[in-house]
Amino acid sequence: MKKFINDPDAVVDEMVDGFLYAHGDRIRRLAEARTLVRADAPVKGKVGIVTGGGSGHKPSFIGYIGKGMLDAVAVGEIFTSPPPGAVYEAIKATDGGKGVLLLLGNYAGDVMNFDMAAELARGDGIEVEQSIATDDVGSGFKDDKSKRRGVVGEFLIWKMTGAMAERGESLSEVKRIADKVNQNTRTMGVAISPCTVPAAGKPTFTLADDEMEVGVGHHGEPGLRREKLKPVDEIVDMLCAEVISDLPFKAGDEVVTLINGLGATPQLELYIANRRLFKNVTDKGIRVYRALVGEFFTALEMAGFSITLCRLDDELKELLDAEAYTPYFTQAGR
Amino acid sequence: MKKFINDPDAVVDEMVDGFLYAHGDRIRRLAEARTLVRADAPVKGKVGIVTGGGSGHKPSFIGYIGKGMLDAVAVGEIFTSPPPGAVYEAIKATDGGKGVLLLLGNYAGDVMNFDMAAELARGDGIEVEQSIATDDVGSGFKDDKSKRRGVVGEFLIWKMTGAMAERGESLSEVKRIADKVNQNTRTMGVAISPCTVPAAGKPTFTLADDEMEVGVGHHGEPGLRREKLKPVDEIVDMLCAEVISDLPFKAGDEVVTLINGLGATPQLELYIANRRLFKNVTDKGIRVYRALVGEFFTALEMAGFSITLCRLDDELKELLDAEAYTPYFTQAGR
Repeated sequence: MKKFINDPDAVVDEMVDGFLYAHGDRIRRLAEARTLVRADAPVKGKVGIVTGGGSGHKPSFIGYIGKGMLDAVAVGEIFTSPPPGAVYEAIKATDGGKGVLLLLGNYAGDVMNFDMAAELARGDGIEVEQSIATDDVGSGFKDDKSKRRGVVGEFLIWKMTGAMAERGESLSEVKRIADKVNQNTRTMGVAISPCTVPAAGKPTFTLADDEMEVGVGHHGEPGLRREKLKPVDEIVDMLCAEVISDLPFKAGDEVVTLINGLGATPQLELYIANRRLFKNVTDKGIRVYRALVGEFFTALEMAGFSITLCRLDDELKELLDAEAYTPYFTQAGR
Repeated sequence: MKKFINDPDAVVDEMVDGFLYAHGDRIRRLAEARTLVRADAPVKGKVGIVTGGGSGHKPSFIGYIGKGMLDAVAVGEIFTSPPPGAVYEAIKATDGGKGVLLLLGNYAGDVMNFDMAAELARGDGIEVEQSIATDDVGSGFKDDKSKRRGVVGEFLIWKMTGAMAERGESLSEVKRIADKVNQNTRTMGVAISPCTVPAAGKPTFTLADDEMEVGVGHHGEPGLRREKLKPVDEIVDMLCAEVISDLPFKAGDEVVTLINGLGATPQLELYIANRRLFKNVTDKGIRVYRALVGEFFTALEMAGFSITLCRLDDELKELLDAEAYTPYFTQAGR
């Protein structure tokens, strides 16, 4: 294991320290738990947006704390759910009187721990709702999409839900947006090399020199199948076919496309993929309203990428384009 | 070679196509050369800021085209200088009547080609000045710093020079800022794995499982020495000692620190490094005015990072904090 670390068991705490040295002017850590919140939390008259999950996905989750996106993040160990207490403290620290929306991926540990935290907070009289992301086509379950994993589609949910909350809308309205974005979002990824969790010390999976894992998860979970590596245009064609047919996206739809690097894939390759993605989508008569390319939700140093499409209407376009000020996503409104 | 590409010789053109599909609302390609410019170039009454260099360093250089940073970038092949014609077209396309400043790293091919382009443009009556970055302590030349490579310190030069130009200052004033930032900036990096240029098909160097390259360049150039891999705190201590003593940075100085991932290093590790960097700098009585952490200037999928310090005064702080709107660096002013 060749990594820039000290003690493998201390990586998350040391990372949080280093993060706060860089962003401590606008993000703070709670005394009660490993939970990071907006420096000005709770924001009065605004629904609190809380998420959390395992570490190793930077810039997710903590890189998106700030005005127009997330109010708090409960920070778990690498690829491990945060404890209920960290989520509970996040809720208490961000309730500005209009309740708190929990956003999470569809992982058993997260679902259980967020549920427990929500119950505790409701006992304190705080209104709490949840919305669970399930955008990963690569996790299968064609017959029961509610079983799918949430992956980088969560970024789009945070963005649009955060903008809705910033407007001062009610908890039920903010939750409606989270669910709506999730229902209109589909993702599928591919990896050509694994990652190594420091405390484990060995790769999450192994692949032959000419193989790729199709439908891989954000923690190196096995995908739908293993195939021979192909030119990237053919890979993009395959991913697009699965993503587009799943919703399905249709001629006349408008979408935001997102290409997410999983960690070690050069941006150069992501843009080559974006070239082919654009062709696939527009050839079907689908309009690209906006295209995002970069690393939004990684899996340590895994080499791979995913393609996401999210169908937009006027309401979602406005929320996507609203201003946001976070360490890793800033826009002054478009 | 396991990469998400099609034809190894077409990677740069395909990347540019994909880049423009994502950012074509604010960046355009010139018809005359592989040169990308702000959509609204030339901006009247503003000095044009032009840079360029080899590809494979994303988000540098083209990811920083936009208001408050770069006006144009001449795009070379992977790790290869752009031809003089591409730089010449960049100058012509961005001269808004106040002249053009060329910013470049200290690489023989770049220096030669930018010089030729400057001569051609001067022949057309355009005022052209140059400023050459030399921030890389790892390239040696303690006795003649003008021979050093320019590396990620260039990002800080683009940021502050771009802000100066946006104010409508004269060419000589904008050049003064570029030189001033360079004189106050020092960088040193380390790598634990190489990268592979697609057209070459084999790694730029090889390292044993327990080795690191200290002082590595942005193209995998050999550094000052090869050492056994150590805990990251010890690596940061070593890099800081070399960077701090070189200027030298002294108690009472204020700096912006920058940790730059070279491609495949997880952000988690960069933040662990930032924790120790903060300690090193503040223990010396140096104040951290601002800390940047991320991928600003990569070398394809190389695993490694560098540490940069830039000494600030009131003038530079204001320029650092000025607004900027580019695909990969946006701030609404601080």
